[in-house]
Amino acid sequence: MPIITLTSDFGYKDHSVAAVKAALYSELSDLTIVDVSHEVSPFHITEAAYIIKNAYHNFPKGSIHLIGVDAELSPENKHLAIFLDGHYFICANNGILSLIASEIKPEKIVEINIHNSIETNFPVLDVFVKVAAHICRGGTLEVIGKLIPEIQQIKNLEPIVNDKQNQILGHVIYIDNYGNIVSNITKKRFTEIGKGRSFVISARNINFNKVYNSYSEAINFKLPKEKREEEGKKLALFNTSGYLELAIYKSNPHTVGSAASLFGLKLTNTISINFENETKYAG
Amino acid sequence: MPIITLTSDFGYKDHSVAAVKAALYSELSDLTIVDVSHEVSPFHITEAAYIIKNAYHNFPKGSIHLIGVDAELSPENKHLAIFLDGHYFICANNGILSLIASEIKPEKIVEINIHNSIETNFPVLDVFVKVAAHICRGGTLEVIGKLIPEIQQIKNLEPIVNDKQNQILGHVIYIDNYGNIVSNITKKRFTEIGKGRSFVISARNINFNKVYNSYSEAINFKLPKEKREEEGKKLALFNTSGYLELAIYKSNPHTVGSAASLFGLKLTNTISINFENETKYAG
Amino acid sequence: MPIITLTSDFGYKDHSVAAVKAALYSELSDLTIVDVSHEVSPFHITEAAYIIKNAYHNFPKGSIHLIGVDAELSPENKHLAIFLDGHYFICANNGILSLIASEIKPEKIVEINIHNSIETNFPVLDVFVKVAAHICRGGTLEVIGKLIPEIQQIKNLEPIVNDKQNQILGHVIYIDNYGNIVSNITKKRFTEIGKGRSFVISARNINFNKVYNSYSEAINFKLPKEKREEEGKKLALFNTSGYLELAIYKSNPHTVGSAASLFGLKLTNTISINFENETKYAG
Repeated sequence: MPIITLTSDFGYKDHSVAAVKAALYSELSDLTIVDVSHEVSPFHITEAAYIIKNAYHNFPKGSIHLIGVDAELSPENKHLAIFLDGHYFICANNGILSLIASEIKPEKIVEINIHNSIETNFPVLDVFVKVAAHICRGGTLEVIGKLIPEIQQIKNLEPIVNDKQNQILGHVIYIDNYGNIVSNITKKRFTEIGKGRSFVISARNINFNKVYNSYSEAINFKLPKEKREEEGKKLALFNTSGYLELAIYKSNPHTVGSAASLFGLKLTNTISINFENETKYAG
Repeated sequence: MPIITLTSDFGYKDHSVAAVKAALYSELSDLTIVDVSHEVSPFHITEAAYIIKNAYHNFPKGSIHLIGVDAELSPENKHLAIFLDGHYFICANNGILSLIASEIKPEKIVEINIHNSIETNFPVLDVFVKVAAHICRGGTLEVIGKLIPEIQQIKNLEPIVNDKQNQILGHVIYIDNYGNIVSNITKKRFTEIGKGRSFVISARNINFNKVYNSYSEAINFKLPKEKREEEGKKLALFNTSGYLELAIYKSNPHTVGSAASLFGLKLTNTISINFENETKYAG
Repeated sequence: MPIITLTSDFGYKDHSVAAVKAALYSELSDLTIVDVSHEVSPFHITEAAYIIKNAYHNFPKGSIHLIGVDAELSPENKHLAIFLDGHYFICANNGILSLIASEIKPEKIVEINIHNSIETNFPVLDVFVKVAAHICRGGTLEVIGKLIPEIQQIKNLEPIVNDKQNQILGHVIYIDNYGNIVSNITKKRFTEIGKGRSFVISARNINFNKVYNSYSEAINFKLPKEKREEEGKKLALFNTSGYLELAIYKSNPHTVGSAASLFGLKLTNTISINFENETKYAG
C-alpha cells in the first residue's frame, strides 16, 4: 500500500487534519499516513511549494501527496492530480507545484472532474481523499479527471540574472524553524553564473563574501572554545536543500533572536549577489 | 484492530503525548493511533468538545477516542467510558461530551472504577490506556466501570431563542487556525427559527445580512481579479461543520490579521441574529 | 519490528521531520514511527534530555530513539549509538543522554563511524536513519561504530546539597505546556536529604512549605466550589516524572498567565529548599 502524505495550512489545533486522516482510514485499511507539515502560513502557496519540494523525493516512489493549501474550488482554482518524478500529487491548480514542475516535467496532469457528484467546502476531505483512495486501489488518473497539458506557474519564483551576467537578484522564499533565511538562489545557479569569481551577497544591511557548505564549516574548531566566536556568528551557506541561506550559528528565535529578526528580513525581501567582473581563476 | 484517537491539552512539546502512545503500543501491537488535537487550550472543555465533535464521526465505527483535557480524577471529576453513535469515548465527566450527547443519546455510559488498584496523577496514561486496551481486546464497558444514566452537561452551550421567535442569542465557541470565529448557532437552528425571513447578524461593531455557504461563494468570479474585493472581505457563512462562522476571506492571523483580531471578538463573546417580524415569503 | 521514535528541534513546519520519516519508510517497511517532540528549543540539550528521559521508558524494550538536537557532526560533536535500559538511542555526544545515563549505566556505547562514506549536513536523515535501519535488521552496534567507555556529561545538571545537609540548591530545567516550572530536584533526593523535616522552598519571591503529590490534592473538595480558591492557586508538587514542580492550579499561559509568567521564573533560575535543623519526627 503506498504512503499518503499530508501538507496543509490547517494547523494542528483544529479538527481538520484528523478528519482527513479519518476519511482515509475509512476508505483504506492498513494505510501509512505521514504529516509533512500543517503549519504552512494560511494560503501561502510559495511556502507550501518549498516544503513539499524538499520533502516528497525522500518518500518511496509511488507515494501520494495531498496538499491542502488554498484548495477551495473556484472557477480559477481547479483541482489536479499529477504524476511527476514517480510520485502522485493531489492539489489545487494554483501554482503550488511549479517549484517542482519547473525542474521536472510532469508525466501526467489531470483536472479532477468527480466534483459533479460532490458539493463540498472541504475538498481535501471530500475530493482529495477519494482521489487518493482511487490511486491506492490501482485506478488511473484518467478515470477521475481529464488530461491537461500544463499546470499554473507561480510568477517571480526564479531569481533574475542581469545581461552582464554579474548579478543574481533573488528573494526570501522561506524562513525556517531556526529563523534562518532561505533564498530562491540555488547552489547550481550560483555556480553557473559565478564561475568561481569573487562576490558579495547583500540583503538589507548585511553582506557576505563567502558561502559555507555547512554550519560547522564556519567554525574554526582548532581554536579553543572561548575564542571561536560561535555565538551569534552570521554566515551564508548552501542549505541541505541546495538553496542559499543566510543564518546565525545556533540561533534561537525565541531567546537571543534569529537571522530573520537580527537581519530584519522577511518573506519576499531582496537578496542580491554581485560578482566581480574578472574571474578569480581566469585562464 | 480499532483506531485509537487522542485529543488533549498536552501540547506537542512535552513528553506526555509520546508517553501515552508508548503505553498504548506496549499494551497492543499492530495499532493505529491518530492525533486529533493536542493544542486544546489548557482545561478548555468547550474547545475540546467542538474539536472532538467535528472529528470523531469521520472515523470508522468502533474507533476509540481518548480525551485528556481536565482529566485529573477528583471527587467531582470521575472518569467515563461511553458508547455513543458507534464510537467509544474515554474522558472525564466534566461535560466534554455534552456537545455530542445533546444531539445523540449515548447507548452506554460507565463510570470507570478500575482506579481502586491504580494511584496516578496521569490518568490518560495509567487509566484511559488500560480501558482502551480492554475495549480493543473485545472487553465490555461493564467490566471496567458501573453503568450510570447520564453525563454532566456544559451549561450555556445552546443559543437562546426569545419568546417572540425573532432573535437568536449565541456566542463564540471556537476560533480556528485562520482566526475565523465559530458561533454556537447551527444552520439547522438558524433555518428553523428564521423560516426564510430577512435578518441581521451582529457581533460587536460588525453586521451581516447574508450568510454564504462557502468562502468562494462570497466572491464574484465574473469580475476581473482586481475588482473583486477579495482581500480582507468580511463574510458570514455556515462552515463545513454546520456552524455560523464570521470570517475574513483568505485571512492570515500572523500578518494582515484575522476575523478574531479585526472584529475584536473572543471566546464567549455574544453573536446575535435578529429576524424581521414579517416573513419574506409569507403565504 | 521495533518502534522508532523521533525527538528534535526541527519544529513541525519545516520539511525536516517528514524527510526523516520518508527516509525511514524507504529503508524499512511495516514500520511504527512515533514523534516524541519536535518542539525542543533550538539546540537546547537539557530540554531534550528531560523530554526523552520521561518518554522513552514507556515504550516497549528494543525501541530505537533518534534524537536530532545539536546533531551536526564536528570534531567535538561525534555521533553515538547507545544501548541503555533495553533501549537504543542514536544522538550526538553532546550530553543529551546524561540525565538518563547518570541513573542507569549504558550497556554499550559506540561512536558511529559510517561517516567515512557519507558527507552530510543533515545527519539525522543521512546517518541516524541508516543506523536505525541497521539495528532494525538485527545488526549489532559494533558494526557501525567503535566502542567507547562513556558519554559526555552535561554539567550542573544535579542539584547541590550543602555540607550541613540542610539545603538543596536546584534550578529550573523545564517549563511545561501549562507554564508550570520543573526543577532538577527529584522526590527521591528531597526525601533522602529532608528526612521528614519541615522546609521552605524558595524561588524568587515565592515560597512554599508544603509539597503535594498531585494538583487536585491541593484543593479541598469538601468546601463548596466558590470557597475553594482553586483559581490561580499556587502550589509545589512532585510531578508525574518525580520532579519538584512549581505550579498554578489549572493555569493557562495564553490567558490568565502561568507559574512561569506569574512567578517570573525562567530556565536555569535557582530553586532552593532549606530544611529545619531539627527533624520533626526526631526519635
